[in-house]
Parts: sequence; C-alpha cells; structure tokens
Amino acid sequence: MLSRAEIEQAQSRAVEALAEAGIVLTDGERRAIEVADFGLSELEQTGLEVVVYVNTKRVCAKELVLFPGQTCPEHLHPPFAETPGKEETFRCRAGRVYLYTEGEPTHAPACHPSRADLGAYTVWHEIVLGPGDQHTIPPATLHWFQAGSEGAIVSEFSTESRDEFDVFTDPEIGRATVVGEG
Amino acid sequence: MLSRAEIEQAQSRAVEALAEAGIVLTDGERRAIEVADFGLSELEQTGLEVVVYVNTKRVCAKELVLFPGQTCPEHLHPPFAETPGKEETFRCRAGRVYLYTEGEPTHAPACHPSRADLGAYTVWHEIVLGPGDQHTIPPATLHWFQAGSEGAIVSEFSTESRDEFDVFTDPEIGRATVVGEG
Repeated sequence: MLSRAEIEQAQSRAVEALAEAGIVLTDGERRAIEVADFGLSELEQTGLEVVVYVNTKRVCAKELVLFPGQTCPEHLHPPFAETPGKEETFRCRAGRVYLYTEGEPTHAPACHPSRADLGAYTVWHEIVLGPGDQHTIPPATLHWFQAGSEGAIVSEFSTESRDEFDVFTDPEIGRATVVGEG
Repeated sequence: MLSRAEIEQAQSRAVEALAEAGIVLTDGERRAIEVADFGLSELEQTGLEVVVYVNTKRVCAKELVLFPGQTCPEHLHPPFAETPGKEETFRCRAGRVYLYTEGEPTHAPACHPSRADLGAYTVWHEIVLGPGDQHTIPPATLHWFQAGSEGAIVSEFSTESRDEFDVFTDPEIGRATVVGEG
C-alpha cells in the first residue's frame, strides 16, 4: 500500500528522470503516471513507474521508469482472448537495466532482488541493456528486470497490455491471479 | 533516385537530429537508417528518414525524422493477411509536425506540399503536434504529414509494418528508394 504522498513523490521523481532523458510529457500524462508497488509496500526495492502513451486492442507503448536498484518482479504474460499473450520489446533509453529471462542461468548475476531468497525469482538468464540496446520478450515467457545504480528509462513497445492477466511468481503479489509456480 | 552520397548525407542529418532530441542509436541502427524519397527525387520536399527499432508480425516501433518542411506524402495502409491493416500512433518528440487525415477540411491549412496542385493530396483535416502530442491513425485511413520549419522527430507505435502494401494517392510514387550509381 502506498500513501497519496508517496505516489506523488514517486511521480515527481519519474517526471524528473524522464525530463533528464529528453522525454516530453503532457500535463495529463504527468498526473497519470502509474506508480506500482505490486502490493509489497517496498517501492524503492520492488516497483515500477509507468507512462502509458497508447494501449489499443492491437498496440501498446509505454515509458518505464526504474529508480536506482528498483526491480520489476518476475512475471509472464499469458494467452488471452485468442491471442498468444503480450509480446514486448524493451529499449533502454537512459541508465542501465538488467533484464532476466528464461534460458541458461548467468553465472554470478549482477542483481539480487530483495525477495529472491523467498523463491520469488526463478529465471536468471541476464541481458544487460544500456542506452540504445533492446530485447524482445515473447508471450508467456518469465522475465524480470532491475535498474542499475543510476536508475533506468525503458521504452516498451508491445501488443495490447492487460496487466490484470499478468502472472507473478511471488505469491505475495496481489496484482494478478497466481496460477502456479514455474 | 538518390545517390549513395545523398543517402549518407541524409542519414547523417537524421542522426544529428535524433541526438539533439536525446535519442540514442546503436552503430548498426545509424547505418541502417532508411532514406525514402518515394521515387520523386525531391528528398528535401518529399521524403522521410526512418529508424526501425522492431517490426514483428504483431508490433512495430520506429523513429521518423523529417527535415524542415519535408513531407511524407498521402497514403493509407490497406487490410492484408486477414488483418485490418496497419494502425499507427504518431507521437511528436521534438519540433512540430502537421498531420493531415480524413475529416472536415481545415480552413487555411498550414502546409502546401510541392505536388498538391497535381492532386496528390486529398485529405486536409489538420492536426498540429508539438513535443508530447500524439494522434492515432486507424487502418485504411488516408493521411500525410509535414514538418514545421525546424523539422520534427516523431515516434511511431504500430502493428506490423509492410511498406510494400502502402497505397499512395500520387500515381508517380513508388515506396522503394532507388539508389543511383556513384
């Protein structure tokens, strides 16, 4: 749970980070920045700040802001409504982001999220994205990501976003229905 | 037709404009910038510089660079492969872009493209986009756009891009750029 003051403070920090990266928002977009703590009440460690530019039945585009060391927790996007589920491309615009997905586990990964010891993170194939680097995550594929010490701005280009369908590995995350551990 | 030297010069100008807007490209992306003259050999008047970030069967994202006063000529994206055709959202990042689409014609529009007197432009509903402004064009809808006097950077978020299917109003237009000798 986040207080109104915590949300507004996080929105202000996100606006500042986006402005530093040269990304211009409208007043309405600034006010509508989503601050997600995934129900864990540890926003600095586990959270995400999101600007949704467009989200239609076919296309979605967002900017994701991660504070230094902040983690978007492990999840996947399942099939829905006769689609294979959300396909998304992450493009790093500023800072550095460590993206983890299915595949050969990386030896000595750079990140160790706060709830990793509880089994909330199961995929450890590390992809490091700096400004201009990008990676596409297919539907129904586990992934999570953490910003480096300077934070990160990541553009997301995807099919329709339906956050309510997201399946998180951590059973404490209340944002989505948990259907089982991967 | 464009010479190799003209293409490289246009790529350099596009890279510079993107850098000014704070947009970072990889070396490979810089070299792959598409310079489109639409077969009219008047790039300064009618043309477009394009960075393709991703283009899958489901999602496409690009940066469009328009030089000062440069026009992307009137076209639409028809249905193909049992899809309704390309849906695209244009988000202005820097400069100013005048977007024209179907709808009530604007009295005294700001733009008058070079080949307008030949009947190459038939939709005149004007939408002015500055940094942070955006507009979504449904499939199979005529549109064209021209940059203001400082040029423009426009992010495009869309479904799959299949340029070869684009239908241009101007019968002189061919979408593929022909590269001349030398």
